Amino acid sequence: MKKSESVMQHSYRQLADQLMHAIKAGDYQVGERLPSVRAYAATHSMSASTVIRCYRYLESLGLVEARSKSGMYVADWKAQNASRSHLMTPQTPQVRNGSSPAPVEYDKLMSHQHRMMQLYALTSQPLHLGLHLASAAPAWYPCASLAKIGQRLLRKDAQAIGLYPTGSGLPALKTALIHHLASFGVDLQAPDLLITNGSTEALSVALRAVAQAGDAVIVESPVYFGLLQMIENLGLKALEVPCVPGLGISLEALEYALEHHAGVKAIVAMPNFQNPLGCAMSEKNKRRLLKLVEQYDIALIEDDVFGDLSHQGERPQPVKAWDRHGHVIYCGSCSKSMAPAFRLGWIAGGRYHNRIAALKLSNSLVTPLFEQAVLAEFLDSGALPSHLRKLRERLVSSIPLVLAAVQRYFPAGTQVVSPAGGWWLWLQLPEKIDSLALLRLAVAEGIAFTPGVMFSNSAKYAHFMRMNIGRPWDKELELGIQTLGRLLAQLMSARLE
Amino acid sequence: MKKSESVMQHSYRQLADQLMHAIKAGDYQVGERLPSVRAYAATHSMSASTVIRCYRYLESLGLVEARSKSGMYVADWKAQNASRSHLMTPQTPQVRNGSSPAPVEYDKLMSHQHRMMQLYALTSQPLHLGLHLASAAPAWYPCASLAKIGQRLLRKDAQAIGLYPTGSGLPALKTALIHHLASFGVDLQAPDLLITNGSTEALSVALRAVAQAGDAVIVESPVYFGLLQMIENLGLKALEVPCVPGLGISLEALEYALEHHAGVKAIVAMPNFQNPLGCAMSEKNKRRLLKLVEQYDIALIEDDVFGDLSHQGERPQPVKAWDRHGHVIYCGSCSKSMAPAFRLGWIAGGRYHNRIAALKLSNSLVTPLFEQAVLAEFLDSGALPSHLRKLRERLVSSIPLVLAAVQRYFPAGTQVVSPAGGWWLWLQLPEKIDSLALLRLAVAEGIAFTPGVMFSNSAKYAHFMRMNIGRPWDKELELGIQTLGRLLAQLMSARLE
Repeated sequence: MKKSESVMQHSYRQLADQLMHAIKAGDYQVGERLPSVRAYAATHSMSASTVIRCYRYLESLGLVEARSKSGMYVADWKAQNASRSHLMTPQTPQVRNGSSPAPVEYDKLMSHQHRMMQLYALTSQPLHLGLHLASAAPAWYPCASLAKIGQRLLRKDAQAIGLYPTGSGLPALKTALIHHLASFGVDLQAPDLLITNGSTEALSVALRAVAQAGDAVIVESPVYFGLLQMIENLGLKALEVPCVPGLGISLEALEYALEHHAGVKAIVAMPNFQNPLGCAMSEKNKRRLLKLVEQYDIALIEDDVFGDLSHQGERPQPVKAWDRHGHVIYCGSCSKSMAPAFRLGWIAGGRYHNRIAALKLSNSLVTPLFEQAVLAEFLDSGALPSHLRKLRERLVSSIPLVLAAVQRYFPAGTQVVSPAGGWWLWLQLPEKIDSLALLRLAVAEGIAFTPGVMFSNSAKYAHFMRMNIGRPWDKELELGIQTLGRLLAQLMSARLE
Repeated sequence: MKKSESVMQHSYRQLADQLMHAIKAGDYQVGERLPSVRAYAATHSMSASTVIRCYRYLESLGLVEARSKSGMYVADWKAQNASRSHLMTPQTPQVRNGSSPAPVEYDKLMSHQHRMMQLYALTSQPLHLGLHLASAAPAWYPCASLAKIGQRLLRKDAQAIGLYPTGSGLPALKTALIHHLASFGVDLQAPDLLITNGSTEALSVALRAVAQAGDAVIVESPVYFGLLQMIENLGLKALEVPCVPGLGISLEALEYALEHHAGVKAIVAMPNFQNPLGCAMSEKNKRRLLKLVEQYDIALIEDDVFGDLSHQGERPQPVKAWDRHGHVIYCGSCSKSMAPAFRLGWIAGGRYHNRIAALKLSNSLVTPLFEQAVLAEFLDSGALPSHLRKLRERLVSSIPLVLAAVQRYFPAGTQVVSPAGGWWLWLQLPEKIDSLALLRLAVAEGIAFTPGVMFSNSAKYAHFMRMNIGRPWDKELELGIQTLGRLLAQLMSARLE
């Protein structure tokens, strides 16, 4: 099995090398149609799948392009090479008529929407190693306990399906969450809390409550691409303030940004285990962040979805724990640490809570009650602390092995910071390799991760990548990392040609 | 039991009459604090609950007002009476400086948000007859079958709880819905369809896809208050075009509105069983509506959540059935006809679908899969047609009895049009009775309905009310209608004093 695979890889690379030379030599002109997969396979006495892999590989290098339903064409590879390097290296600002340098309009080069769609298209095919996924391994969640509770509830109270749900959340879940939140210093009462359709809805209504189209909000950089897309879709502007690996958002940069942009309405941040960096702010810095927010009288939208997943020591407190004046809009969720499929989030909106509650009502009316009832019973059973302990232990046990494999298989010059919580590994690739090109190659081999270009509206993270390592260490993961290393080496040699 | 109740009612009315006379005679001044419930009860040797009912009754008449935590005060009843009649009768336009008449700014008089909150506060207490609820009786839904499917799925595949859901909806549900939709002439493919968190989310992303803050959209009048709230929260303007009982939106008024307002981006309508009127448009009028939409090149957001609930004859076709150019954004849901608690809706966005899909993604990422899987299996089992037949039969059997009771117990001059589908009864009360005042009295007796003032941004439906009649005819419902009739008579006599 392994042998034939390596033969196959060899033959598609051989074919690709031939074609690459032919294209670069001008034997195939830009815009010319390449032979169909079937015809090419017949001529060269090889399998169709080898030809497909070859074409995909060339596509990932920007040498050919597929046109829907009509086949494969030679791409305008010279122009593409030029624009790619344009995207990847800092531009020399051009001063026109003595005015200040024109900002690079990256969003015109490629909108976030467009990149999201590309990513979804790329990863929608069957994959055997989905390192782009947002949750840990399914087996790491208390699925059996939750399913049992669900079965019992359905048996006991089937009629509940016929009731139109109302209200801001199941009272039993709110009570259970209030206890959970109190265990790490967040003191709330039932009216302060609202159950949402995941933390995505929580963030969305929070943003809508504090900002209107045209307003600016500050985000960390790099930042979860879903947030950038949300901000774009709400007509808001994202100001990206650097997040320092191991430390969290740069408070100096943040203060500078607040001083220089009058219209900022909110900061969206993940003080606990930032996505993708995995770092947590110190308590001292959290307090400084809160002070800044109070000083400028703006909202802090605190995304704490990874808060339960520290690798060492106590669960860190969110900024909300010290919020006395209601500036902090706290968003949590069960999707990362408890039950990914439930799509339950929660929000405590502080001084903005009434507005948030009204927006939630007109956004999706209410959140389904079944999952809320199951989660409430699970929390009431007292099973959460031991589940979280196990989940953290599993995470912590696999991380050093992943880091060692990256060091072994990835090219020299790859940089990685070990995360303090969560399951993201944020990798800086050497020699400004475009991780989107790597992704195209990887997907052809059934492996996906998230390319760095997704984590900013600029292209500055194009040579970064994010990998989910919330899964047991096994041969499959090792092989996957090995494969990514091999593809990286291919890309580097292709760039040198 | 009944006797003591009537004595109690009698005594609170007696007390109220005394107090009313005292207030009108000036014995209690405007702004003066009334005795506490406990003190008053002790002085008059009656129960505290009688005093509470008395105060509530006077509050509903606008004679006293509660101030949070500090007790009951005499309201500025003279000013209120003036402003109430101002709200309820059409104003004589005042021409200033020869310019066109200033429009009445109803939204400044009372915002929709405020009214919604009042309604929620009023109906959040325990009620024994909730005629304001949005679904039919729980027993009318296939709860047992759905619960059984759910139990089996949880037993078979508990691990699914640990999977982070992705995509635009469970493929099995999409396939099942496509078959269902095809049964009444809507031809779709899987990529045309998106599963949402109820039809509320569907409507919300549809509006966001076609209009931006400041834009105008046309709605039917009277119209479901949730839509007005959503439009307000999105910063859009609602143009209310009259909906004619028995016919649906007036196409003449619609055409006039489109001719006179350049910036209209969409029409939101319920061609099948409008909420609250319960009427369906004829096929001919649906085609005319589509033609207008095409002519003005705007979107029709078609809310078809009641489409399955015709009282007679075939399930009517939605406008989407004839949409050839993608102008119609079709929104459906399982909340009215299949499973209220599931909170599942669907949307087929036509030419706006890609934008809608992107907005859904950043609004709540994905819709929970468990309910989708249960509904898919239910639809695949072929159980829907017989369930819908039963649901309609039950609806149809109770409606004439409700209508007869209204005729018997409500004051002369009450007008009602029998609905063609759905379960709303839209009643016009005589002599411009304020149905919000009626609601305050009714809630004190454990009965709720929806006051007409909710169904427009103007106050023109203040003397209307909407009642849910999707429940078995029984003594409780009859007593409820009788009670409402009695309270109406009280209000009318109070107004005559």
